[in-house]
Amino acid sequence: MNFLEERILSDGIVKEGNVLKVDSFLNHQMDIGLFDQMGAEFKRRFADTPVTKILTIEASGIGIACLAARHFQVPVIFAKKSKSINLEGDMYVAEVESFTHKCKNNVIVAQKFLNSQDHILIIDDFLANGCALQGLIQIVQMAGAAVSGIGIAVEKGFQPGGQIIRNLGFQLESLAIVESMDAETGVITFREQA
Amino acid sequence: MNFLEERILSDGIVKEGNVLKVDSFLNHQMDIGLFDQMGAEFKRRFADTPVTKILTIEASGIGIACLAARHFQVPVIFAKKSKSINLEGDMYVAEVESFTHKCKNNVIVAQKFLNSQDHILIIDDFLANGCALQGLIQIVQMAGAAVSGIGIAVEKGFQPGGQIIRNLGFQLESLAIVESMDAETGVITFREQA
Repeated sequence: MNFLEERILSDGIVKEGNVLKVDSFLNHQMDIGLFDQMGAEFKRRFADTPVTKILTIEASGIGIACLAARHFQVPVIFAKKSKSINLEGDMYVAEVESFTHKCKNNVIVAQKFLNSQDHILIIDDFLANGCALQGLIQIVQMAGAAVSGIGIAVEKGFQPGGQIIRNLGFQLESLAIVESMDAETGVITFREQA
Repeated sequence: MNFLEERILSDGIVKEGNVLKVDSFLNHQMDIGLFDQMGAEFKRRFADTPVTKILTIEASGIGIACLAARHFQVPVIFAKKSKSINLEGDMYVAEVESFTHKCKNNVIVAQKFLNSQDHILIIDDFLANGCALQGLIQIVQMAGAAVSGIGIAVEKGFQPGGQIIRNLGFQLESLAIVESMDAETGVITFREQA
């Protein structure tokens, strides 16, 4: 079991409706030492991959992306989420629709920060259905840039997002993949990783 | 002139309506080396101040707060902004109203992450009218915690937020204080600091 899986077991809380609360260390209060360790692990997993920029999405991806960026020595761009578009200038906009939540969101990045020479590492805190992630991939491709890989802190392996992204041929590295969790017993099991 | 003022002069763009665009290094694309330098400077300015946690607000404060937290060796909490309140659990909620934008927002932090023993350093990217900052201070005080100080990247010195906060007796450290800026000529002048 790795350091993030251990932390999830000790401080994560399983709630009804397949909710995993990790707000004490990951997405409300943030443990910066842990984020630094996650950044080092992403660097290890993407050691042979060219990365010119890290792309994430507001809000809870930003902290993880920023600490990871220290290990890659590249800038971070965070995509904005918006129901409506009112940003000035030339923007890449991906409209993404949540299958489960029945809501539409726009994922937005200023065009000037992505170009066809870029090799983009996408980083986010959670992957479930992969809706936001699909929007980020779409934006990288709109810019003619390459997706170098995708680094996720916690993947819900029992939801389809991860499988879809791997089926599309992307290198997706999730530091913890939750295979199952039980709100009654609190038991969490992880997918074994090499 | 310090490193952040120099960077603003070289890469910031003044737009009509007192808008200073720093999205190429501060609040859309983020220069992590610069953020690390800002974190070190905040640590120098608050060297003798007890700090148990850093509090910021989504989205563009998060990156700066996370890099600063490495220098203070403390966790970061980011407050959520919302027009409506639909978060579960016990929350501190400050309703803040923008004098200029005529909009209300709720600033929200889970109660379990702040307590009366905490010494909170508040960090954010911009200070203009200080609306969000007033909400953050209110929340720290609701929790019975102490505001150790406030660290801001860019203060618009010609808007009232900074003066109000200093009048209230808080130690406010802004790495760059823009005294005036001119959209026609592009000239930016900074307030002299020790």
